[in-house]
Amino acid sequence: MTTEENFPAASPAFILVETQLADNIGSAARAMLNFGLDRMRLVNPKPEWPSDRASALASGADKVLKAAKVCRSLTEATADLQVVYATSARPRDLVRRIITPEQAGIEMRAHVAAGRQVGVLFGPERMGLVNDDLAVVDAVITVPVNPEFASLNLAQAVLLIGYEWMRHGVEVPATELRSNESDIANRQHLMSFVDRLVAELDEAGFLRVAQMRPAMIRNIHALLYRTQATDQEVRTMHGMLTELVTKRLAKRKPR
Amino acid sequence: MTTEENFPAASPAFILVETQLADNIGSAARAMLNFGLDRMRLVNPKPEWPSDRASALASGADKVLKAAKVCRSLTEATADLQVVYATSARPRDLVRRIITPEQAGIEMRAHVAAGRQVGVLFGPERMGLVNDDLAVVDAVITVPVNPEFASLNLAQAVLLIGYEWMRHGVEVPATELRSNESDIANRQHLMSFVDRLVAELDEAGFLRVAQMRPAMIRNIHALLYRTQATDQEVRTMHGMLTELVTKRLAKRKPR
Repeated sequence: MTTEENFPAASPAFILVETQLADNIGSAARAMLNFGLDRMRLVNPKPEWPSDRASALASGADKVLKAAKVCRSLTEATADLQVVYATSARPRDLVRRIITPEQAGIEMRAHVAAGRQVGVLFGPERMGLVNDDLAVVDAVITVPVNPEFASLNLAQAVLLIGYEWMRHGVEVPATELRSNESDIANRQHLMSFVDRLVAELDEAGFLRVAQMRPAMIRNIHALLYRTQATDQEVRTMHGMLTELVTKRLAKRKPR
Repeated sequence: MTTEENFPAASPAFILVETQLADNIGSAARAMLNFGLDRMRLVNPKPEWPSDRASALASGADKVLKAAKVCRSLTEATADLQVVYATSARPRDLVRRIITPEQAGIEMRAHVAAGRQVGVLFGPERMGLVNDDLAVVDAVITVPVNPEFASLNLAQAVLLIGYEWMRHGVEVPATELRSNESDIANRQHLMSFVDRLVAELDEAGFLRVAQMRPAMIRNIHALLYRTQATDQEVRTMHGMLTELVTKRLAKRKPR
């Protein structure tokens, strides 16, 4: 049988403690795999295990469920781990390091990169983790939520921590211009279009008020040079301009 | 009747386009309100509207559904908006600015702070938004997911964008030590305990090898000075030490 141990230690284990509903275990598996996480551990799950209902909800993330390790205690589930986080609302009456999900993502990446075994605890649906559980972890991850409506369910908590794990492991530019067929045009190509446009506008009489001309041209520049237009788009603009000019000339001719 | 217009513009409108299932509209409302978002717009929702099923799934976020504005077209739904984002996997064959959810959170906060009306589009469950929709937005938000298992549902996408909105609006330290009853002890209090501990260890003979003593003390310091122990915890340690010493002395006496 494949078990969670067969997976390489290259990702944190997500440990679901005394989960009540099979649906939530399935949804959690699905949320995990979206972010490349496939090491699940279940401490005393309440549903019969394995569970068809959980598989149905996992919708394709079945392999996570099949490899999940079922444990009889939190001690057993964390025995081989070196760093353990818990997810919880801000705990009362307990001196704990509280970190954001982002900080958790950053720390988990660093620990895993150093070859450490990392785990994250998720408590039962209604009650969450108890203070005794929170006392034995390295830090508590608290998701910032609306204080007047804090209603994150188990799979959503799994999703958010998984997202922060993923986010800090992939090199995605915060913002980029996406194009399949052609890249951003170089300045010469764009400039030659802009110059042609200005020439045509001069020809058409649009820039005839000499006083206004410099400001008008500056505005045209400001508009076009910030577009990050691609070569393809520059060609399109050339085509459009040609059409417009031809139509204008065609109209003029009959006169 | 309360409508979405009655809400202040202090948060982005989340626009669900041609959503198929009432469950997903309800779950989306619940996800939104977790992060303080209460402006929902529905473009041609497929379920009967209003929907009891959606209310059931919203579990308490009913006010978001009640105030949701139903629109007949995307044009109508975005007419009053100044900045519009779409959520989508990376679009093909389209030159679009692609941004991360984090970048979206940062930008949305800046736009809203400048008094601008902002919206985010979420496409239908199976198909997502079509290229015609993506062509009219300012940028496309793409969540980084496992390329071998990209299976985010509608409410999960709403949750992640909502989370990034929330995250960039609240001042939460990335990491902090949480304690209700007492704060981190000042160095003097901690040091007085450490000094007492060393004195007791000397007395007990634990530090009797003179050669080893400096390194042992350094190790004790390294361990205790990084704990960020609170005043309460320093008192507890004093108490523990007193007990241990007393027991030792008590044991010794009978001899």
